[in-house]
Amino acid sequence: MAAGFQMAARDGTARTGVISTPRGEIRTPAFMPVGTAATVKGMLPESVAATGADILLGNTYHLMLRPGAERIARLGGLHRFMNWERPILTDSGGFQVMSLAELRKLTEEGVTFRSHVDGSKHMLSPERSMEIQKLLGSDIVMAFDECPALPADRDRIAESMRLSMRWAQRSRDAFGDRPDHMLFGIQQGGLEEDLRGESAEALRAIGFDGYAVGGLAVGEGQEAMFTCLDYAPGMLPEDKPRYLMGVGKPDDIVGAVKRGIDMMDCVLPSRSGRTGQAWTRRGQVNIKNARHADDPRPLDEHCSCPACRGYSRAYLHHVFRAGEMISGMLLTWHNLHYYQEIMAGMRAAIAAGTFAAWEAEFHATRAEGDIEQL
Amino acid sequence: MAAGFQMAARDGTARTGVISTPRGEIRTPAFMPVGTAATVKGMLPESVAATGADILLGNTYHLMLRPGAERIARLGGLHRFMNWERPILTDSGGFQVMSLAELRKLTEEGVTFRSHVDGSKHMLSPERSMEIQKLLGSDIVMAFDECPALPADRDRIAESMRLSMRWAQRSRDAFGDRPDHMLFGIQQGGLEEDLRGESAEALRAIGFDGYAVGGLAVGEGQEAMFTCLDYAPGMLPEDKPRYLMGVGKPDDIVGAVKRGIDMMDCVLPSRSGRTGQAWTRRGQVNIKNARHADDPRPLDEHCSCPACRGYSRAYLHHVFRAGEMISGMLLTWHNLHYYQEIMAGMRAAIAAGTFAAWEAEFHATRAEGDIEQL
Repeated sequence: MAAGFQMAARDGTARTGVISTPRGEIRTPAFMPVGTAATVKGMLPESVAATGADILLGNTYHLMLRPGAERIARLGGLHRFMNWERPILTDSGGFQVMSLAELRKLTEEGVTFRSHVDGSKHMLSPERSMEIQKLLGSDIVMAFDECPALPADRDRIAESMRLSMRWAQRSRDAFGDRPDHMLFGIQQGGLEEDLRGESAEALRAIGFDGYAVGGLAVGEGQEAMFTCLDYAPGMLPEDKPRYLMGVGKPDDIVGAVKRGIDMMDCVLPSRSGRTGQAWTRRGQVNIKNARHADDPRPLDEHCSCPACRGYSRAYLHHVFRAGEMISGMLLTWHNLHYYQEIMAGMRAAIAAGTFAAWEAEFHATRAEGDIEQL
Repeated sequence: MAAGFQMAARDGTARTGVISTPRGEIRTPAFMPVGTAATVKGMLPESVAATGADILLGNTYHLMLRPGAERIARLGGLHRFMNWERPILTDSGGFQVMSLAELRKLTEEGVTFRSHVDGSKHMLSPERSMEIQKLLGSDIVMAFDECPALPADRDRIAESMRLSMRWAQRSRDAFGDRPDHMLFGIQQGGLEEDLRGESAEALRAIGFDGYAVGGLAVGEGQEAMFTCLDYAPGMLPEDKPRYLMGVGKPDDIVGAVKRGIDMMDCVLPSRSGRTGQAWTRRGQVNIKNARHADDPRPLDEHCSCPACRGYSRAYLHHVFRAGEMISGMLLTWHNLHYYQEIMAGMRAAIAAGTFAAWEAEFHATRAEGDIEQL
């Protein structure tokens, strides 16, 4: 069975549908938990699935360095390695090599760098990124691109975008004909509308199975990001999934879906969980705050996750303060559950044509007051 | 329903039976995972239950300091606090106050000390220990005792034992009449057979619902411990459960059950799990060893735990090296599963009158070779 996208309904510019792959269906809009080093930190894969996640994101950069893509291939691929049989999307390594690697050198050919883990020397190029993602067995492969940090001047953004478009063509050529897998191109162009348009045209000319809006959530702020999302997704093919990389907080996600985004990923729910931060209908909770020490109520009485069904805020406060692993385990589970609940709510609302009402309720609940004070 | 012990079968000096409590039955011989700070580190309570554990151990010393026994009582007791509805045994705090607390001062009345967490001043006595364990809601309460480190001279051991026997009487008096709960006395006397006998007589005269062999596993070595266990359990009432505190490695546990012990606890399986050590039928595995990096086999192909069903040694090696939480989560689960499998095997063998054959097989499997080399 070939992989592909089937749109089911639109509501304004928001969309809902299904990406079909041989490893299962991905309901969109979809939030992808991040499994950087072949694990979603603090979670067993069956628990990740229980939150409602249809797909995980794996990081090419981290996995190529440790334990190594060839090793994972010998062991049967990333799905078997990490015990996750559902779809996996892998990034290209392009973003992380520029933010994490040492002594990196960028040329037309690609990037050479030293590992932040052990100092060993490596190379990433469109061809090597495609090879690694194939070795991992990724269901959705991302084209290799370069992503400049914002703010950057227009010339730098334009030059970088055009390099990424040449790399997009090389990624397409290297990916080859693999109908069970999907290759996504990545639109660049920063906050410059005309450069976003030029990038979209270049990607359309090459032709991909899906399209990412890249280069956002890198420090520009929500307002600037939403301004860009008011035009950028509409430049991409209507009949293919659109993926906003590295986003975000709950209200970022809702605003992105409203503007026509179908997929997102972010480390925020899992990272927050490990640092004692919970995301709820009513906003963020800092569980280490002393006001929770005697509170017998769950984090959110409307939440059905294991953390909220089984434990008081007092317990979550205690285990965080005591440095116990269960603190990160429970809060991560809660956060991922809440994120998937938002996605399910949006999918249902878009299908019913009631997205505007759903969004108004989402914002109104948060405005009613900080859950920590209630 | 009053709590009590029902012996089902004997095989040599080994015994099997059931301790009944209003919160559920405890099949003996029983291994109790340790939930020091109201969590078995790295495990959700439903996972602990899935390993086959009927009862957990909680630490009075840790819980009184953080989050505080009165606080736990206000929150509905330790069971509700930590989301574990089955029985809980709590220690008396006596052992840990002597090994962990600062500026401790021992008198006939009890022990004053400063918390190792925040330096706050506290007191433990037989009466306060009984009060704390009642506040926690413990199903099996331990008498407050003093436990000298070995080696110690005979006078010191005798003096300490006699203090513990006076404290045992005060513990019994302070515990009061609580038929749904059990109070265990603790035999002391080091490795001195006559002192063990004197201690047993004192405890019998007071009368308890169960009896612990205390003061072992404090550095004396397995041979000396087994020598003591050749006589110490037989000094205690035949019709009450016998609990060996703080033991141990798998072969310690088997040797103790063989000598008439019904209950044990130890941090070893959970602590080992967090440091990359797995316990298996064939001995110990150090998962950080480089030889596991490419090994597609499970830790133990005969084990049905989630770590062995879902993951290769290569994966377990990778996540340990990468410092991922799932490493401690999976290895702890495996270790606790393996420990409970040993207990289940011994219970069945004792009931069938085949304990000697079971024990021979246990040792023969381990002797066949280090699992790391196979």
